[in-house]
Amino acid sequence: MYDIVIIGGGPSGLTAAIYAARYKLRILVLAKQTGGTIAEASYVCNFPGFKSISGFEFMQKVEEQAKTLGTELIEEEVSEIKKKGKNFLINGIYESRYLILAVGTERRKLNVPGEKEFAGKGISYCFTCDAPFFKDKKVGVVGGSDAAAMAALLLREYAKKVYIIYRKEKIRAEPILVEQILHDAKIDVITNTIITQIKGDNVMRSVVFNDGSEFKLDGLFVEIGSNPHNKLAEKLSLALDEEGYIVVDKFQKTSIDKIYAAGDISTNSNKFRQVITACAEGAVAAESIYTQIKKEK
Amino acid sequence: MYDIVIIGGGPSGLTAAIYAARYKLRILVLAKQTGGTIAEASYVCNFPGFKSISGFEFMQKVEEQAKTLGTELIEEEVSEIKKKGKNFLINGIYESRYLILAVGTERRKLNVPGEKEFAGKGISYCFTCDAPFFKDKKVGVVGGSDAAAMAALLLREYAKKVYIIYRKEKIRAEPILVEQILHDAKIDVITNTIITQIKGDNVMRSVVFNDGSEFKLDGLFVEIGSNPHNKLAEKLSLALDEEGYIVVDKFQKTSIDKIYAAGDISTNSNKFRQVITACAEGAVAAESIYTQIKKEK
Repeated sequence: MYDIVIIGGGPSGLTAAIYAARYKLRILVLAKQTGGTIAEASYVCNFPGFKSISGFEFMQKVEEQAKTLGTELIEEEVSEIKKKGKNFLINGIYESRYLILAVGTERRKLNVPGEKEFAGKGISYCFTCDAPFFKDKKVGVVGGSDAAAMAALLLREYAKKVYIIYRKEKIRAEPILVEQILHDAKIDVITNTIITQIKGDNVMRSVVFNDGSEFKLDGLFVEIGSNPHNKLAEKLSLALDEEGYIVVDKFQKTSIDKIYAAGDISTNSNKFRQVITACAEGAVAAESIYTQIKKEK
Repeated sequence: MYDIVIIGGGPSGLTAAIYAARYKLRILVLAKQTGGTIAEASYVCNFPGFKSISGFEFMQKVEEQAKTLGTELIEEEVSEIKKKGKNFLINGIYESRYLILAVGTERRKLNVPGEKEFAGKGISYCFTCDAPFFKDKKVGVVGGSDAAAMAALLLREYAKKVYIIYRKEKIRAEPILVEQILHDAKIDVITNTIITQIKGDNVMRSVVFNDGSEFKLDGLFVEIGSNPHNKLAEKLSLALDEEGYIVVDKFQKTSIDKIYAAGDISTNSNKFRQVITACAEGAVAAESIYTQIKKEK
């Protein structure tokens, strides 16, 4: 019997664990895989305290920290949550008074050959995090939304040349962004074009377009949106926003009593979805539950 | 001429700087002293990625990180902010398009002899951060509010004995908290009592009460509230909440256009006021301004 079962082993879930453990709550972290999406990042340079650290190494430190404080961590996917009296029963085994869903999101992928191979080796899914690594390089941005436009406009500050590659006739970002892009000699827009393959050796070197041509690029930013991991949330009938993220209040509480959400899956932190914001939300969720528990006893 | 002048050199201000610098914005951090209140903490153990680090060392790392990215940092107190056309003029010298107030708060002090000397050497102003350091110790909590009660209820999990020391007749925490405290053999409440001095050698050893008696304690948690540093905010006529914190929206924007606030001084993160939440708010403020600037050009 636990005070909190935290579902998800990324920055948010493990920070919630660090805080909850220090509040002496009985906690369990259940995660299909610890680390979260950040564990795949080659370098993290915008997390305060670390000038440069691999995502994997960072998450190892956080996991070690949580475990040192007594966090129990089991690598197990959560498929079922039921009510059992006033508590929750998870996967038919673990009983808990409170839940924190820190299940994260997944960046949408191109799903083409070479994408997996060169992820973190030229291919990036976070321009805010990785743009500075592409100084004087030739980079592509896949997508036509505001996010793709913002990626191109940041990349042009670092890269030698930026290509926006979009499958439709016209990019659909806000007009003021489109205008900047069209007037920027450093940015070219390639429309009606789909990437069918990514090639390289130890790092990516080029992309193949749907017309069969090969195009040299040192980097590729995939900005085609995110899929929130909201299956559990849907099963629990938690309120979601129009994009499928879990709506939370300032306590990180969801629409259902005793269920909290934190990190990329939640609507807080202006949905900025950075490691630092995920961690902060985890801490707030743990504190909110601790306060609640003290007032219940 | 800057894009952003950040006022405050604590975790929030410097994280805003890290993000803004990576967005290639022209930024200046103005701080009376860099580091913020956390720089005074002996140990920080709840910041993800660091099992244990001194507050000073942590802030040195963050400052170094911000400077490496090109952040300009001047140790100067901000006393005056005026409008100059569409921009702000700070201290009559620095012109900026946007402002981030990351000016923090100050924990209320007892203002008695020995308090300064033993701060971080037995005296703490953050129970969430420091309770675990007092395993099997005899500790005091000064105050009678919910915060003092919560401090005592967490400390009882670690300490051998906890004394709540309050100047009035009865502690004024929520009844359910008071009830737990009164039924807890580990917690005693000493009312009608004021601490007039704190004594020790290399660490604190005892407190002196207003009746002249000396009382042995290994630690003392001062939980008598915080004073937000809101003088600048008042001069700027920013909306404040009932406790004097700067009201911000999800973008960390204040009630006045182009002025943002982040960290302990803001109403976000459920006013949890931790290093991790301060950093996250700084990042969100920087991103919000960057997006705004791109849409202005």
